[in-house]
Amino acid sequence: MSCFIDLNADLGEGFGVYRYGSDEELIPLVSSVNIACGWHGGDPGTIRRAVAIAKKNRVTIGAHPGYPDLMGFGRRYMALAPNEVTDGLLMQIGGLDGLCRAEGTRVSYVKPHGALYNAAAKEEALAEAIVRAILLYDTNLVLLCPVGSAMERAARAANIRSAGEFFADRAYQEDGSLVPRSRENAVLSDPQQIVARVLSAVENGTVLTETGKVIPITFQSVCLHGDNPKAVQLAVSVSGALRSAGIIVRPFAGADNES
Amino acid sequence: MSCFIDLNADLGEGFGVYRYGSDEELIPLVSSVNIACGWHGGDPGTIRRAVAIAKKNRVTIGAHPGYPDLMGFGRRYMALAPNEVTDGLLMQIGGLDGLCRAEGTRVSYVKPHGALYNAAAKEEALAEAIVRAILLYDTNLVLLCPVGSAMERAARAANIRSAGEFFADRAYQEDGSLVPRSRENAVLSDPQQIVARVLSAVENGTVLTETGKVIPITFQSVCLHGDNPKAVQLAVSVSGALRSAGIIVRPFAGADNES
Amino acid sequence: MSCFIDLNADLGEGFGVYRYGSDEELIPLVSSVNIACGWHGGDPGTIRRAVAIAKKNRVTIGAHPGYPDLMGFGRRYMALAPNEVTDGLLMQIGGLDGLCRAEGTRVSYVKPHGALYNAAAKEEALAEAIVRAILLYDTNLVLLCPVGSAMERAARAANIRSAGEFFADRAYQEDGSLVPRSRENAVLSDPQQIVARVLSAVENGTVLTETGKVIPITFQSVCLHGDNPKAVQLAVSVSGALRSAGIIVRPFAGADNES
Amino acid sequence: MSCFIDLNADLGEGFGVYRYGSDEELIPLVSSVNIACGWHGGDPGTIRRAVAIAKKNRVTIGAHPGYPDLMGFGRRYMALAPNEVTDGLLMQIGGLDGLCRAEGTRVSYVKPHGALYNAAAKEEALAEAIVRAILLYDTNLVLLCPVGSAMERAARAANIRSAGEFFADRAYQEDGSLVPRSRENAVLSDPQQIVARVLSAVENGTVLTETGKVIPITFQSVCLHGDNPKAVQLAVSVSGALRSAGIIVRPFAGADNES
Repeated sequence: MSCFIDLNADLGEGFGVYRYGSDEELIPLVSSVNIACGWHGGDPGTIRRAVAIAKKNRVTIGAHPGYPDLMGFGRRYMALAPNEVTDGLLMQIGGLDGLCRAEGTRVSYVKPHGALYNAAAKEEALAEAIVRAILLYDTNLVLLCPVGSAMERAARAANIRSAGEFFADRAYQEDGSLVPRSRENAVLSDPQQIVARVLSAVENGTVLTETGKVIPITFQSVCLHGDNPKAVQLAVSVSGALRSAGIIVRPFAGADNES
Repeated sequence: MSCFIDLNADLGEGFGVYRYGSDEELIPLVSSVNIACGWHGGDPGTIRRAVAIAKKNRVTIGAHPGYPDLMGFGRRYMALAPNEVTDGLLMQIGGLDGLCRAEGTRVSYVKPHGALYNAAAKEEALAEAIVRAILLYDTNLVLLCPVGSAMERAARAANIRSAGEFFADRAYQEDGSLVPRSRENAVLSDPQQIVARVLSAVENGTVLTETGKVIPITFQSVCLHGDNPKAVQLAVSVSGALRSAGIIVRPFAGADNES
Repeated sequence: MSCFIDLNADLGEGFGVYRYGSDEELIPLVSSVNIACGWHGGDPGTIRRAVAIAKKNRVTIGAHPGYPDLMGFGRRYMALAPNEVTDGLLMQIGGLDGLCRAEGTRVSYVKPHGALYNAAAKEEALAEAIVRAILLYDTNLVLLCPVGSAMERAARAANIRSAGEFFADRAYQEDGSLVPRSRENAVLSDPQQIVARVLSAVENGTVLTETGKVIPITFQSVCLHGDNPKAVQLAVSVSGALRSAGIIVRPFAGADNES
Repeated sequence: MSCFIDLNADLGEGFGVYRYGSDEELIPLVSSVNIACGWHGGDPGTIRRAVAIAKKNRVTIGAHPGYPDLMGFGRRYMALAPNEVTDGLLMQIGGLDGLCRAEGTRVSYVKPHGALYNAAAKEEALAEAIVRAILLYDTNLVLLCPVGSAMERAARAANIRSAGEFFADRAYQEDGSLVPRSRENAVLSDPQQIVARVLSAVENGTVLTETGKVIPITFQSVCLHGDNPKAVQLAVSVSGALRSAGIIVRPFAGADNES
């Protein structure tokens, strides 16, 4: 049984007058927050507010860089060349880090966003491009990525630390991969079921697949979604259930490298 | 007589397929390069190439942040609130610094771009917003700004180092300010005249105003323009003339804070 | 006493995943809808949905063009040259009109947005630039603008029809201009007070100023705000009160020029 | 033997201070000009200038819409949903048409740009999305596309007129498709060879493939590239050679639907 686990969520994704997600309510409930870097969402003011809330609540900050597609919120695949991905990440991570400095904290890890995350989970060249950005920016940054992904392999090959994540509200296939969103049963919505699955995954290291098989699963963080109306209540339930089970919620990275 | 002077130019301002300025030719001719940060110009690839050229030629790198107006190249005044300016600068300086890290160098100073530069030269609140970004990002950054400007005063009040610049190809008024671009004689075009003025300003600390009066002028850097066809030839002439006069061209900042 | 009045609101201002305003609820409650054109807000999908709702509810469509400043939602003054304003409006009106064609309708009027609206209310050159766009695009378009503004004068001079608007929730000064938003009492929030003022303005052609004086006011449309949580309820109250008073809510423009 | 042929080129693709292509020199040399619509390139001022040059030279104007990716100049594939493509095209075509109205002309045809052109040449759903935009905007618009492409088929199925184009400087495969740019011999650079190929294609309806086989080819327009330094000289050579051979260069569309 695990004694510790990290909870992460994507936040800081509003833009100007546009609000998105529940930064104020959700950040205090997680141990790690993936903050947008301006390309798929996030303007300087929104980002800085998210950073300040994280700092105040001692929540570790990760960069959440994406494709340069605000209109599509970074959810549409874009055929960027690997060097374009590397340079784009350097600029996005640096931009977020600039706002972190203003609040007396720093970026501790990187989790690519949306379509970039999905593409780099499978394509070696993209995974390597992302790891190269980490190598060039700060070799202490951790890569938060799917277990068993091309990103995990690229990080290992480059001697960069990675952390795997379990998706609280997503169905799994027998090979440990997610059921694609295009399929009907891809996303779970029953809070009790989600909480039970998280507990089972954290305590037993197993998950029930869509086909009813129990498979082992290894991860350092549980991803909660921040962009639906019930996100806050679900986060309260999950973190409460973990605490009740004697499991400590704490960051997988960064606790000690703050300025 | 001065023995040392800095030459600076705005570069790294292309965007994607769009080229702008002569990065390859001009960067080796100056001692400090103001590199765009993506808002008024500069995509990650263009910026990184400019950084690499600067690094290779031991040219000091300054951040050249502007308004978020690519369509207007940051030359149109925008009524940003002071906190929007501060946060925008933190993100822009950080983004450039991320690309600098990849090339083993760092941002050493800040020179606001275009309409932001002009507005912050006069408006105290904007000048303070810019200085606040420097205080929050890195108190070692130097502010490159007009002599006698609100920026210079705000930097002094905050105990931030500033450096004044002399514009090689601009006419001056008797009070030491530039002749506005709206006036016919605002910009000089005769290379010989420009070279002679630079030499006089550097050697004697004086400039001949539009009215024919000789006034004293103090500065640490000479600004060369990088975006016109004759920019390279003029930079060759100016740097050659300075060398012939025994004046060493060297950065006003940053020589020793590289990683 | 007026027998007819128009109600207008700014909508279609979301962008991608970002929602803004209550398009579905509010459009059926007004007779004219000012739809964003992509520069300060509005992506093609959001805009087309707003157009479709308007078409279905027989609500007249106006173009609501703004500054190219999505980050600032077009609320920050930008120093665009008059020809930049004209060309930008032509492109924005045309873009909206392209989406209108898909739904079998057309743009019938133009109401500039945010900081552009405010600037063009005062600056003759901007007002003329806006009118020039209408002249070049379609001389049948009506300009919706403040009563007594530079826009109204420029429209008259160019023989373009204009319509004045009364702001339901804004305080007025004795000269008929709005109390600036920077002042505390600029925006009214009491629904009963707002409804009473609208009725008085429509029925008597007068408004009570902040100083307690009753002044005459002439207008063809009442502007309701669409971007605050109570907007829908207020729109229900205002339109209900008008109907109860025997006043017909109908568009000031465009009813008969649909394709 | 053909007596008439159209020459087309992509222009109006600059953005703000960024120049791209030789609008002034090239537009008078072609009979049809594909003008950018702001998403991959083209700001209102640049577009309007290109439209004015076309109008003055009696050159037919086509919309050249692309992906919303200025940083990548629309050359990077983006996974837009078909309805996003349709709505995006409606907005882009309309935006260009707004600027055309100002110059007393109109959009006569549509040629998708870059990665969208390539994707829609193969993917039925994208091709249909593009044709749907034409159906919704103006059924008289012609679709300029590759011969034998999915776009051509979708246009035919919807009873929309299409025109095929021959690429002056690209190598062909035996099945009539272009040699991919990733291959070394994809692009021809010898002006004499290019001119000879165009003449042969226009006069004989044949092209020599990369393997040395002569295949038949049918087209209504010859595409000249506008974005390389030798583009103007090549256009002079091609149009001169066509004239010398007694072939009239004239638009495939739009001559009579100007306002």
